[in-house]
Amino acid sequence: MDQNSFMKKAFALAKKGRGSTGLNPMVGAVLIKDNKVIGKGFHKEFGGPHAEVVAIADAESRGNDVTSSTLVTSLEPCCHKGKKTPPCTDLIIEKKIKKVIYGSIDQNPKVKGRGIADLRRHRIETVFLDYEKENRLLNRGFLKVVAKNRPFVTLKICMTLDGMIFNKVSGSPNIGDEEQLTHSNKLRAEFDAILVGVETIIKDNPRLTYRGAKSSTEIQLRPVVLDSNLRTPLDSKVVKLRNNPIIFTKLSQDSSRAKKLIDLGCTVITMQDLSPKKVLRKLLDNNLATILVEGGAKIFSSFLESNIFDELIVYYVNSFMGNSGLGATNSLSKEFNKLKDRNCTIKKMGNSTVMVFN
Amino acid sequence: MDQNSFMKKAFALAKKGRGSTGLNPMVGAVLIKDNKVIGKGFHKEFGGPHAEVVAIADAESRGNDVTSSTLVTSLEPCCHKGKKTPPCTDLIIEKKIKKVIYGSIDQNPKVKGRGIADLRRHRIETVFLDYEKENRLLNRGFLKVVAKNRPFVTLKICMTLDGMIFNKVSGSPNIGDEEQLTHSNKLRAEFDAILVGVETIIKDNPRLTYRGAKSSTEIQLRPVVLDSNLRTPLDSKVVKLRNNPIIFTKLSQDSSRAKKLIDLGCTVITMQDLSPKKVLRKLLDNNLATILVEGGAKIFSSFLESNIFDELIVYYVNSFMGNSGLGATNSLSKEFNKLKDRNCTIKKMGNSTVMVFN
Repeated sequence: MDQNSFMKKAFALAKKGRGSTGLNPMVGAVLIKDNKVIGKGFHKEFGGPHAEVVAIADAESRGNDVTSSTLVTSLEPCCHKGKKTPPCTDLIIEKKIKKVIYGSIDQNPKVKGRGIADLRRHRIETVFLDYEKENRLLNRGFLKVVAKNRPFVTLKICMTLDGMIFNKVSGSPNIGDEEQLTHSNKLRAEFDAILVGVETIIKDNPRLTYRGAKSSTEIQLRPVVLDSNLRTPLDSKVVKLRNNPIIFTKLSQDSSRAKKLIDLGCTVITMQDLSPKKVLRKLLDNNLATILVEGGAKIFSSFLESNIFDELIVYYVNSFMGNSGLGATNSLSKEFNKLKDRNCTIKKMGNSTVMVFN
Repeated sequence: MDQNSFMKKAFALAKKGRGSTGLNPMVGAVLIKDNKVIGKGFHKEFGGPHAEVVAIADAESRGNDVTSSTLVTSLEPCCHKGKKTPPCTDLIIEKKIKKVIYGSIDQNPKVKGRGIADLRRHRIETVFLDYEKENRLLNRGFLKVVAKNRPFVTLKICMTLDGMIFNKVSGSPNIGDEEQLTHSNKLRAEFDAILVGVETIIKDNPRLTYRGAKSSTEIQLRPVVLDSNLRTPLDSKVVKLRNNPIIFTKLSQDSSRAKKLIDLGCTVITMQDLSPKKVLRKLLDNNLATILVEGGAKIFSSFLESNIFDELIVYYVNSFMGNSGLGATNSLSKEFNKLKDRNCTIKKMGNSTVMVFN
């Protein structure tokens, strides 16, 4: 295996921390000796040991001597004190690791190259293998929180060519074909939470899970429902799956309806203002850093109107539905044309076209 | 100038016949001597002289000797008798033209290579410069009539990303920005007629002309309005411009309303069935071979439902309108997904995306 393969392994490990690293970045690391992986680790939970520490411990627990091994890590090792865990560089030096290959610089001003400098001072060979782009994508939630103090938000809409998102006549929840659905489902794996309106829960009864990965437990998607009047059905899939859905409502948490939902494992948050801004603020408080907004029309409209989103993904499937369809938007106080300020890429995908604005 | 430049000139000339060659193909020709154009011509009207004949006459009328000149023509010269005009090959041979450069083969089974063979037999040098693609585009109306006995039909829709074609609140007729409007206007130059519903006439009051060409008289766009109850306003632009608009109605031509429109230069056609099939049949009877359907929702829906169209051009402008917009479609008896059988190309265009299905 070459450096890139090991780095990709580190990134794959990093992703396992999704949903539990809180507002920390996701990081993964592997230890290599004789071109073989002798230990691996990822940053599992906020306040817990860093990926490098986990990888070293993992190697040793398997009876491997880590002396003179190579550490491949998705992010520059930390070197600063005064936090929950000691500096990773200290352990790397102590354990006589020979070489450190890192994929990105830690943008935390307390580190930012100092970790690497520290290692060099101790004659540890360092190699920068440029995976900055991959790291920016992986940790876009973390980076957005650092930069803007709110989660990273993606709006995802799947429509017919005439802008319909749901067939009122057939009641079919899916507009897209299999290829679109697969693509759209895969997308979910990159988010901490999926946000929908209660109408979507009532009409589509979606699971809001990421399907397809073999070890689905690795992906901790948190369902979020905006539901002013607590109409989320007690037997809806999102409740029954017990993924601890967050339900935002204007009703009191003491209402009998709220109590029932809480008994069923839901987190009920009462707020009088369910605007995107307020909701996102609360999601950040809940350590959710990347939010995928999946509709329906009311939710899209309010997010578009607020212009608080980082990415808009529109799938157009090659069909027309006419007025048996439900439109993608409802009220917008005026035409939303701020997309002109965003970059747009378009791509054909089987019987669909995907437009991405960011 | 090189061969290609001359051929392009021939095609530019051919286009001048748009709207008047009836169901004949458009053809253009230039005569070259000493690398200079000494004569030019195009097929001007059904039954009139062919482009080659016009070019020779044009050269001679300017005092040029056409002996030993080169003829560049967009289409193979005809060689068959028993039609309104004598074979062009006879004249070419008689006039001692030295060389014929042709851009496409005449698909008429009475010609189809025989014109060229005829010239060769008389020791005239022939060169095939492949402009078949250009000819297929230019004469797609003629070719569609030959193949399917109906005009070539393009549907053109400009929408916001949520499928709105008109702003009900502002009443603004244009969804697109300048770049889209320019593109869309340019498109009109390639059609014999523009078809719209009466709602579009009432709401947008469009001119339905091709604007932008310096000699706009060259482009003979015929406005066609589907108007069951003859609601076309007498002072609408389409009536006032006196381009002999065709108005399809279910009302009698003897009604006072119809009489007024006829007095104002309109052609009123009464039919009880205004389905795309019947309307196109009638347009063919009126020698209109390429039809651009521009909406609105009712017209789009009926053409989609009938699936009688050869090309669908959708412009998506990068904005959302919400429910102050009027949707691109209204009733469709069921979801129209036959686009899956068509080829789709997508292209970014400034602040819009263009999808073309054909």
